[in-house]
Amino acid sequence: MPESASPQQAQQPARESFGSRLAAAMAARGPLCVGIDPHPQLLADWGLNDDVAGLERFSLTVVEAVASLAAAVKPQVALYERHGSAGMAVLERTLAASAESGVLSIADAKRGDIGSTMAAYADAWLRDGSSLAADSVTLSPYLGFESLRPALDLAAQYGRGVFVLALTSNPEGKSVQHIGGSDSVARRIIAAAAAENQRYDGSLGSVGLVVGATIGSALEDLDIDLGPVRGAILAPGLGAQGATPADLRKTFGAAYPTVLATSSRGILAAGPSVEGLRAATAATLAGLRSE
Amino acid sequence: MPESASPQQAQQPARESFGSRLAAAMAARGPLCVGIDPHPQLLADWGLNDDVAGLERFSLTVVEAVASLAAAVKPQVALYERHGSAGMAVLERTLAASAESGVLSIADAKRGDIGSTMAAYADAWLRDGSSLAADSVTLSPYLGFESLRPALDLAAQYGRGVFVLALTSNPEGKSVQHIGGSDSVARRIIAAAAAENQRYDGSLGSVGLVVGATIGSALEDLDIDLGPVRGAILAPGLGAQGATPADLRKTFGAAYPTVLATSSRGILAAGPSVEGLRAATAATLAGLRSE
Repeated sequence: MPESASPQQAQQPARESFGSRLAAAMAARGPLCVGIDPHPQLLADWGLNDDVAGLERFSLTVVEAVASLAAAVKPQVALYERHGSAGMAVLERTLAASAESGVLSIADAKRGDIGSTMAAYADAWLRDGSSLAADSVTLSPYLGFESLRPALDLAAQYGRGVFVLALTSNPEGKSVQHIGGSDSVARRIIAAAAAENQRYDGSLGSVGLVVGATIGSALEDLDIDLGPVRGAILAPGLGAQGATPADLRKTFGAAYPTVLATSSRGILAAGPSVEGLRAATAATLAGLRSE
Repeated sequence: MPESASPQQAQQPARESFGSRLAAAMAARGPLCVGIDPHPQLLADWGLNDDVAGLERFSLTVVEAVASLAAAVKPQVALYERHGSAGMAVLERTLAASAESGVLSIADAKRGDIGSTMAAYADAWLRDGSSLAADSVTLSPYLGFESLRPALDLAAQYGRGVFVLALTSNPEGKSVQHIGGSDSVARRIIAAAAAENQRYDGSLGSVGLVVGATIGSALEDLDIDLGPVRGAILAPGLGAQGATPADLRKTFGAAYPTVLATSSRGILAAGPSVEGLRAATAATLAGLRSE
């Protein structure tokens, strides 16, 4: 019915929400996100130089290998940024290759600011037409969950998503995230994400959380229930960092079906051969499915 | 005595610590940092397009105008990032122009991560030879102050500095920073910065803090004493955002001599003429000196 569609609507076809797209990908492929972490040591292990050419070769190889297998890929932005603007250009090409290959992308940028500056970060990572646009981006809430509002709203507008740092497994994270007793900082962030996801229909809202795979009993200790979140739980730490699929089920309990496990080095160590990377990805997926 | 100097030491002449360099600049020029905030609206007000050419013209004009007047300039990284890798290349040229002009730079990036990923951010912003290297960078501690260790150590090694987000004036910041009662998150971050600055001699260590100019009575309410910090207090909010120099003295009390006031729009609104920007900078400095 073109009569009822404005020209703008016609130009901007509704993209399904990120939460819906991620839920579909996790159902079809399994709950695995492969981290693209071009650390200097991994580049060397792959026989690549620690320069933009090595960075590009590494990144595009991972995308080629895992795009048809994993639910998502997660390039680690810091590792592109350390190569300056030329490294960021490689990240742009990596995100474009991911989109072309039909795998969801999570730009692991951990950005956070306030007001019009936060809006600028949202613009960079979540706006149609931005060269750095990803399907979703990780955010850091030291300035308050609500300071992330421009990104929450732009993500909703464009069918993109966010993952907000909540409860991490590095020991020093406790000095911020665990503070506040029965109403801890982490608990507040998680409650705010749950409230935000009420704007979304379907099994998963588009506001996910980052919760470490190796947090042990922290959820219980802090009296945190992930059940009401109804957003994906991005859980780094599978494989090389120490968590098994069984650990994930134990740690996340009833929220386990929403967990998107992230493996980086455990899979990347199987490179540089595409076949090796695919075999490692398939084995990781098999382990997750058996849970 | 070349006999006692290793070749590496000879290649890497000791740069004075960032704290010492900043203290000297503040003493010589006054406690003013000019924010370089190429917001879309400001670009339009200056008759520039919201593209990389406009971004570059804006940034280099600010550097040209204020480099001989202000103690530091603070480019807002988000506003370059929203132009993608090409915008980050403009930031590289802005930082290079600042260094050539002899004004200290603070890359307002609010980066934060853990382990080898945090080391990569440190590498990007604080390592000699990195195209994005600035004299200092702002950091966000949601993952714990100690998670910033790679940046703290690389800054010390290269005579660079950091400013860690501590206590901000946006209302939603309270939901993280004020949590914890008499041992709040903000108080812990500030105590950690004070401890870290003990590695530095001189009037200012190289670990600064970001504390909003318009926090009102928050320091008193949270029983926080900035006295022992002995690092610069980067205080955004002078001018257009509402704080006067008299407010700064009242808010920061005995710590006022370590405050580096930041003005962005209050000065930038006087552009695009170099003369206008210089007059606004001089007037802002005069207001600060009169306190």
